[in-house]
Amino acid sequence: MENVSIVSKQVKKISFDSVLEIEDQLAVEDPLEIQLEYGASDTRIRKSISVTMRTPGNDEELAAGFLFTEGIIKNSNEVKSIKHAGENRVVVAFAENKKISLEKTERNFYTTSSCGVCGKASIDAIKTVSVYKNQVNNILIKAALLYSLHDSLRIRQEIFDHTGGLHASALFDNNGNFITLREDVGRHNALDKLIGASLFNDQLPLNNSILLLSGRASFELIQKACMAGIKIVSAIGAPSSLAVELAKECGITLIGFLRNERFNIYSGEQRIRL
Amino acid sequence: MENVSIVSKQVKKISFDSVLEIEDQLAVEDPLEIQLEYGASDTRIRKSISVTMRTPGNDEELAAGFLFTEGIIKNSNEVKSIKHAGENRVVVAFAENKKISLEKTERNFYTTSSCGVCGKASIDAIKTVSVYKNQVNNILIKAALLYSLHDSLRIRQEIFDHTGGLHASALFDNNGNFITLREDVGRHNALDKLIGASLFNDQLPLNNSILLLSGRASFELIQKACMAGIKIVSAIGAPSSLAVELAKECGITLIGFLRNERFNIYSGEQRIRL
Repeated sequence: MENVSIVSKQVKKISFDSVLEIEDQLAVEDPLEIQLEYGASDTRIRKSISVTMRTPGNDEELAAGFLFTEGIIKNSNEVKSIKHAGENRVVVAFAENKKISLEKTERNFYTTSSCGVCGKASIDAIKTVSVYKNQVNNILIKAALLYSLHDSLRIRQEIFDHTGGLHASALFDNNGNFITLREDVGRHNALDKLIGASLFNDQLPLNNSILLLSGRASFELIQKACMAGIKIVSAIGAPSSLAVELAKECGITLIGFLRNERFNIYSGEQRIRL
Repeated sequence: MENVSIVSKQVKKISFDSVLEIEDQLAVEDPLEIQLEYGASDTRIRKSISVTMRTPGNDEELAAGFLFTEGIIKNSNEVKSIKHAGENRVVVAFAENKKISLEKTERNFYTTSSCGVCGKASIDAIKTVSVYKNQVNNILIKAALLYSLHDSLRIRQEIFDHTGGLHASALFDNNGNFITLREDVGRHNALDKLIGASLFNDQLPLNNSILLLSGRASFELIQKACMAGIKIVSAIGAPSSLAVELAKECGITLIGFLRNERFNIYSGEQRIRL
């Protein structure tokens, strides 16, 4: 199968003692438009709600994950079909009985990268819309299990090894067994794809899984994790201040700087056995 | 002066043989709303056009850089004032004679992360709006000069050293002398701040400067560089496919993987003396 996520380009590779003309592999970045189709059968409406720069592949998952983490759909039954209309456009057809408030959609979309105008308002907004906010879980995992996730991610991040240009989101069960991995030039897209795949496979809420992020943990990524009911998020990089605050509010265990058999716990330490 | 970009949090630092309770420093992430105020003096209109998750500090530069790189303003004379209205909101008041088409604004804003629905359309859109697209320059820089930029960035990236959570955009002249650095949790914000600062200092177009990016080079970052007339962009990380295509179309020299006295040239090699 052709890999649509990578493209080869001719580049000059320079070092202090050599100049080489080589074929280099780049992560593909291309826009994806998400259109919604909704309403009764005689008055179907089609409307574009988002354009995101993404790496092609798993576009249907990306669309589903985006709609779910934005609170526009609550489960997969609300969606009749998700189909490509050209390479860079997917149309999500809603069931005819699905109520959709466009105002709400716009508000939701507006809040992709934030909600309201202060961190507090943003956090309150997320807490209001999350379907799984009251989901309790008492997972207890060992520190050593977290160390192993890092290696496991690197081995599986096949595209990353070729291009160095993709972010990854990976899902593991609470014994550290690998479940799924998705990659994208946009870290929010990688996570949307992962959550979309879980939605298609009826695996939501993901309250018994561990999410591993290849880079930093921002507010937006914790927001998406919270929407999917994830209770343990580990990042290879640093978390932001608002990511930590949201993790605390959502009862998420947030791990940062997971590398070289070390990590920091920013919230929810009761789930980690030291 | 208080540093509003960093916050201290209590964290547990875990390694294979120790558990320490320490004060850790995190990069602050908080929403910033950008409002426009425009129209004749008796019919001034105020409208919100963007909310972005950013690291507080240099918010006026961020707003100015965003408006400039989105093509909404062409120079600093069009702006009467940029003022904070609360911690997380800035109001950009336009000169009364400034024509502003809201439809255009919305289209522009819509395209922050992309334009149109294929990479080709995106590139064409950028080429159309860039003020400096026909700016010619014949800078010739040595490979050794590029090596020195990496070290120079690390030394100056003071916040990064504390939190590990910020992206940086830095500007150097064509002799490798440091000009400006801006940091943010969002890489697009760091570059908007840098370009906004240059706009305030009447330094645009930046066609004799070298831009250094601390991470990867995406389409969006090359778009902003192109809007500011920058001709040499160096990234510590990997470029995406569309970043390379846009750099070629805009006549930008694009360097990637600049580290350890090595780099790759993806476009515009005539400006690099090997």
